[in-house]
Amino acid sequence: MMSDPPIFNRLALIGVGLIGSSIARAARAQGVVRSIVVTARSVATRARVTELGLADQVVDTSTAAVAGADLVILCTPVGQCGRIAAEIAPHLAAGAVLSDVGSVKAAVVADVTPHVPAGVHFVPAHPVAGTERSGPDAGFAELFINRWCILTPAERADPTAVKKLAEFWTALGANVETMSAEHHDLVLAITSHVPHLIAYTIVGTAAELGQVTRSEVLKFSAGGFRDFTRIAASDPTMWRDVFLANKDAVLEMLGTFSEDLSQLTRAIRRGDGDALFELFTRTRAIRQGILSIGQDSDAPDFGRSHDRLPPVPRPYAAEGE
Amino acid sequence: MMSDPPIFNRLALIGVGLIGSSIARAARAQGVVRSIVVTARSVATRARVTELGLADQVVDTSTAAVAGADLVILCTPVGQCGRIAAEIAPHLAAGAVLSDVGSVKAAVVADVTPHVPAGVHFVPAHPVAGTERSGPDAGFAELFINRWCILTPAERADPTAVKKLAEFWTALGANVETMSAEHHDLVLAITSHVPHLIAYTIVGTAAELGQVTRSEVLKFSAGGFRDFTRIAASDPTMWRDVFLANKDAVLEMLGTFSEDLSQLTRAIRRGDGDALFELFTRTRAIRQGILSIGQDSDAPDFGRSHDRLPPVPRPYAAEGE
Repeated sequence: MMSDPPIFNRLALIGVGLIGSSIARAARAQGVVRSIVVTARSVATRARVTELGLADQVVDTSTAAVAGADLVILCTPVGQCGRIAAEIAPHLAAGAVLSDVGSVKAAVVADVTPHVPAGVHFVPAHPVAGTERSGPDAGFAELFINRWCILTPAERADPTAVKKLAEFWTALGANVETMSAEHHDLVLAITSHVPHLIAYTIVGTAAELGQVTRSEVLKFSAGGFRDFTRIAASDPTMWRDVFLANKDAVLEMLGTFSEDLSQLTRAIRRGDGDALFELFTRTRAIRQGILSIGQDSDAPDFGRSHDRLPPVPRPYAAEGE
Repeated sequence: MMSDPPIFNRLALIGVGLIGSSIARAARAQGVVRSIVVTARSVATRARVTELGLADQVVDTSTAAVAGADLVILCTPVGQCGRIAAEIAPHLAAGAVLSDVGSVKAAVVADVTPHVPAGVHFVPAHPVAGTERSGPDAGFAELFINRWCILTPAERADPTAVKKLAEFWTALGANVETMSAEHHDLVLAITSHVPHLIAYTIVGTAAELGQVTRSEVLKFSAGGFRDFTRIAASDPTMWRDVFLANKDAVLEMLGTFSEDLSQLTRAIRRGDGDALFELFTRTRAIRQGILSIGQDSDAPDFGRSHDRLPPVPRPYAAEGE
């Protein structure tokens, strides 16, 4: 068997939380880069990355990290991308691909592009994958498998750079799609940002009620509420930045959602069971669509595990047992 | 080892969907009843229950089912409880315990109580457990383990009947709590009903957008949206009935939620990152509370499974592999 070259020589990751550390693990597992250098703002994170052995080299500064790297990926909250781009710009290698993993694209493009030196290829990316956990311990190599990674290159972007980055993400298990940054932000506003905002809101609402205690909210959360708490446990800094950076699309989608909620509220007030039944039937089909394209587990309840039945406490054990 | 008597002699289940069929499976596995008789409205469901062997007897009518039963549980959508109670009332055995599993309690109490004959003990119950699946195939014996079952007996209810029903649910793995029907309905409005309504709404909103196609919504659903589609795939008839039957509490909680959402929307519009960060930090603690009392899986992403990494497509396999 011929030995084939890695896609990139040296991968620099700026930030190494859930996404950055998953990229490090997957890139190494797949052998798609020759070496990995990472940096993180906090001393504790850098020490932990060293302990975990996630990279070939852990360095203290972004400028040190990017030296000699032919793929640089910003894996920080989106609010920091502009500042970091300004900082690393003079140190980027000629011909390097610069990318990111931000959940918002137009704002990142606006913040980063002015700093990108001639001869460096900026190709923004967003792997649509994650869990509610944060930090370098939370990552795993399989995170991107069968998830989509959206690239939003500028129209005049270098086709080879775009192709290499697409191959990198494909090797990590992702499906790659290309669209404009503006369209990405609309799509993600409805498939990710507004759902998160709603989850954060309802969890906040439930926690502050006068008539129902917090203890009751926690105990009886299996009726549906607990699903929302998982999403509302996502990283606060990341999500603050997302809402600030994708303000317009989020507000637009929130407006549509609020209108729909008002309409449904009216249906309840009027006792219009047919309107409720019609919507509840339509939404069931959306779930089927997601399962049929493999974007969620088809196991009931996401495949949550269940304990075995305990022995029946006497005196109620069945006869003969 | 002494052989101990079952808690009830003959269990009649009226309706045998997710909850009814899970009760049948668990009650048999735990040996807490001597025999199980079930009925269901549709011929197809009754045939399927016979095929699955879930009961000792499958009968065509509710009146036939309750004859000689000392525990009768209504496992239908809540809108049907009153009608069924009227139908079975003359056929209920003296001393029998009559119960239900409805997600709304005050309306069921109001609908059923007038029909309950003297000498029959009505003890309303709500096991706070479920999945997004429906029908007799969807049930499983472990569904109620470590979940709460809320009893809402009237103040003058027979203590022995309440105690026996509590023991029945305990044997099925549930924790039992008692409260008033009115308080139950407020608690469930926030922990279950409003979360479902919000999920149904956002899934409906996403499906009908002009700017984002349905195909995009499905593809990029792993950003958070897919969690909502699971909840919005729940049984339409059951949920229509819940919202009609718990109108007041749902509208009250929806009002509070809408106010909170407006406040958060304003924070986004004004770019108030501190307000967002503060909420997102508070909500994280609620998740921790739910995990610490064992009401959800602490595995990331609910423990959803992930595929293994695929072989790297040549020409990009790492050297030496």
